[in-house]
Amino acid sequence: MDKTDSPWVRTVRLVKPTLQDNTADADRLISALKTGLQTDAVHLDLDLLKKLPHLLRKWEYHVRCILVEDRYRWLVTGIAGVDDPRPFAGLAVDLGTTKVVLRLLDLSDGRILGESGFDNPQLAVGPDVLVRIHFAETPDGLQRLNELIITGLNQAVQDLCWSCRLEPRDIYTVTVAGNTAMTHLFMGLDPRWIIREPYIPVINKPGMLKAAELGIQVNAAARVFIFPNVGSYFGGDLIAGIFFAGLHELSDTAILVDVGTNAEVVVGNENWLIACAGAAGPALEGGMTKMGMMAGPGVVDRIAIHPDTHAFDLHTIDGGPPKGICGSGIIDLAAALFLSEMIDIRGKFVPAACGQHLKQIEGLAHLVIVPADKSATGSDLTISQADLDSLIRSKAAMYTILETITTSVGLTLKDLSSFFVAGTFGSFIDPRAAIAIGMLPDLPLDSYKPLGNSSLGGAALALTSVDFLKEIDGIRDRITYLELNVNQEFMNRFSAAKFLPHTNELLFQSVKKWI
Amino acid sequence: MDKTDSPWVRTVRLVKPTLQDNTADADRLISALKTGLQTDAVHLDLDLLKKLPHLLRKWEYHVRCILVEDRYRWLVTGIAGVDDPRPFAGLAVDLGTTKVVLRLLDLSDGRILGESGFDNPQLAVGPDVLVRIHFAETPDGLQRLNELIITGLNQAVQDLCWSCRLEPRDIYTVTVAGNTAMTHLFMGLDPRWIIREPYIPVINKPGMLKAAELGIQVNAAARVFIFPNVGSYFGGDLIAGIFFAGLHELSDTAILVDVGTNAEVVVGNENWLIACAGAAGPALEGGMTKMGMMAGPGVVDRIAIHPDTHAFDLHTIDGGPPKGICGSGIIDLAAALFLSEMIDIRGKFVPAACGQHLKQIEGLAHLVIVPADKSATGSDLTISQADLDSLIRSKAAMYTILETITTSVGLTLKDLSSFFVAGTFGSFIDPRAAIAIGMLPDLPLDSYKPLGNSSLGGAALALTSVDFLKEIDGIRDRITYLELNVNQEFMNRFSAAKFLPHTNELLFQSVKKWI
Repeated sequence: MDKTDSPWVRTVRLVKPTLQDNTADADRLISALKTGLQTDAVHLDLDLLKKLPHLLRKWEYHVRCILVEDRYRWLVTGIAGVDDPRPFAGLAVDLGTTKVVLRLLDLSDGRILGESGFDNPQLAVGPDVLVRIHFAETPDGLQRLNELIITGLNQAVQDLCWSCRLEPRDIYTVTVAGNTAMTHLFMGLDPRWIIREPYIPVINKPGMLKAAELGIQVNAAARVFIFPNVGSYFGGDLIAGIFFAGLHELSDTAILVDVGTNAEVVVGNENWLIACAGAAGPALEGGMTKMGMMAGPGVVDRIAIHPDTHAFDLHTIDGGPPKGICGSGIIDLAAALFLSEMIDIRGKFVPAACGQHLKQIEGLAHLVIVPADKSATGSDLTISQADLDSLIRSKAAMYTILETITTSVGLTLKDLSSFFVAGTFGSFIDPRAAIAIGMLPDLPLDSYKPLGNSSLGGAALALTSVDFLKEIDGIRDRITYLELNVNQEFMNRFSAAKFLPHTNELLFQSVKKWI
Repeated sequence: MDKTDSPWVRTVRLVKPTLQDNTADADRLISALKTGLQTDAVHLDLDLLKKLPHLLRKWEYHVRCILVEDRYRWLVTGIAGVDDPRPFAGLAVDLGTTKVVLRLLDLSDGRILGESGFDNPQLAVGPDVLVRIHFAETPDGLQRLNELIITGLNQAVQDLCWSCRLEPRDIYTVTVAGNTAMTHLFMGLDPRWIIREPYIPVINKPGMLKAAELGIQVNAAARVFIFPNVGSYFGGDLIAGIFFAGLHELSDTAILVDVGTNAEVVVGNENWLIACAGAAGPALEGGMTKMGMMAGPGVVDRIAIHPDTHAFDLHTIDGGPPKGICGSGIIDLAAALFLSEMIDIRGKFVPAACGQHLKQIEGLAHLVIVPADKSATGSDLTISQADLDSLIRSKAAMYTILETITTSVGLTLKDLSSFFVAGTFGSFIDPRAAIAIGMLPDLPLDSYKPLGNSSLGGAALALTSVDFLKEIDGIRDRITYLELNVNQEFMNRFSAAKFLPHTNELLFQSVKKWI
């Protein structure tokens, strides 16, 4: 094994065959590759066998091989001369309902070769999972949805490879993390039963498939690993997130939160994992307030309020004139308003403190954040009392979910050693602001860890991890899914969380110091 | 598990999914099938996954599955309703250089559904392995040879299925036993290095391939097992023979002989197996004497000579007028001539005993077996002194090979508990005659066991054997291949065996009693 080798990129120098040692080419190669692998099951595809005798002799039995670990066996997917400058590339795919993101890696050292993203072409059929599943039930609907994503991915792979001066055939392993419905459509599997009681996917652990079988145009022998799901509503994207965060390896209990339309939450450690999902409200995505929008140019992502003058200090993503506010900006805003006492503990505007910023529009109180002459839109950017009420319901729902899942295993939120926040939301949110409004628990600020695109991160990590399949299967199998019952206890917690930061101030002692 | 089930045909009644038990369809099925299997790795093909949700619900989660055991995992290749009358069929193939023989089985009980054979269409390219391998080196030659056999097999499968009122899609498992060159051409693998020193196949253990990948038109998910080889000159047909005879499971040491152009010999028991091959002479195939031919209608297969009158008592395969003599007939003839003292211990005609049967043709002594007026050809059927000399060289070579391999492991031929004789030759040969001329050792007659087409037998047995892959791999791995060195010792043995029955009469004490 060369110094630069990994378990899946292996340089081997075979003993040349003689009359006394007439082992066949494939078996000779397999025998050399077995050294150091956990199994003695190594498999070569027929495509590769057809080229093998020629290639081995051309390179005088000194070759570099690329392998991928399947369940209970290793697959040799490629072979090259030791001096071949082309890398063995791997492709990680975050298969989002809205956006698909690709990352190309050099499998020998994990180096990132390139990254790109494209809108999921299934958006043409419908924006959400439900619409697409219903479309899949129409004649040829499933096939059409499958073709859209496969064709789109093939095009994106070609473009990404081109920009990295590679070819799709240089890709030997692909990992795909997506929600249960998206991975079903990706495989061409009937998603009909995912949305019907009792919500049954076709498969939980798709494992390793041949790229060619899926229509993915990469190397002919390449394999595609599809992250497993726990059920219809807890998909491979979240499993990838847990894998990426390493939640399943921690000795102390930690939590992982992925905020989208739903808030998906996992609590656990090396011994157990418990998960739940609940509607935390679209306010957190920037989708609720009139001026709310997804993060982008001109979008306000940071807000401070001068304690004495109550002047707004805004930061936009690109520094340009503001045109709207994203989820993290809204949380910042609410926190700043609360800490400067411009809103009270119920989230209601305090007219005396808001002063001239406050306007009545159509009978509803609005706070002007950016006056028309300073905004990119030419209109006032405002937040209304209704927006704030909605935010408070969302943050209360979030906190209640966090409290419920933690309580269900006999812990309190204070017992959590790390708090991983996935997704775009996680990258932009200021934990201090989120704590100030009581959306996230009052943990030491350094326990908050943004993960970024953890679905992509997990998919990429799988490409360069030993025993990733066993590890990921293990995560899946260990997850206990908790159905959130909106019972009296839940409602009591929710009511208590509808104040800033919370009815029980003891839970948020840091906030007092920030006022 | 139903009473009628086997490990590979399994009837399972799944617990129907509920909100509390939302395991996916595939994982639910796999979980039920795992019970009783040696591994927990059960795999479903994508093709099958696409149909699974519909089929499970149609049959209310009560289904019959067909599985095949791969290395380290089981593959589900088919699923049917419990009341479906169509059998899960398996196909065994003896992939001969000259003839291909098929046997169709019901996998649930091993019942033979039908059998057929066809000439290997590669005969159009050339009669033997060597010619075909050279042809494979010409442009498109390999592809052409591959297409010939695959197309021929597909046609034969279709015809055989039709005659059994099945369809090719009812076939879920295929096993193929053939020599190393034939299996390479079957897989489309380059056979070039098989015939060039140091004689290296592309692969020793091809294992389990997808039928579709090979172009075999049976069920889309079906798998094809190709018997492994020990090297270029010891192929899967012989491994199948050992498997069929059960040589590898015997506590006493036994021998297996397959006589074709070469004599292939295996000696062994449950602990070890040693093999060799050598040219035993085409005389034994009926290919040498002028009147020699392959067994068929009008061909003499049994000959007796009246001890007093020296009249010939002939038996032809179909009872019709004789037109030639097959290998077993020639051995019978030689034995009868020797026992009636019409030839001496050197195999030379004794004119006094042969009398009027003896003629000089072109200066060479010929014995008339069938006069012109009684033969199917209108000419005398004769055997010449040269024919006899050739037979004696062949039988001496055979005995020498048997003696050499047995001696190499410190045994004598008398130590062998069973003597398996494979192939057509084995089915027709009279052990008493073969012993009389000293071709086979003087063992009790009931230790001789004809195997028939043991290559087909082994292929069929694999279809209905638990752990056949492990067992067959085990046979392959245990075989030690003995290079026959034609050294002084071999030549000494050969010289001693060139007498009838042998120079050392003590080795053939039974023969004296038969004279």
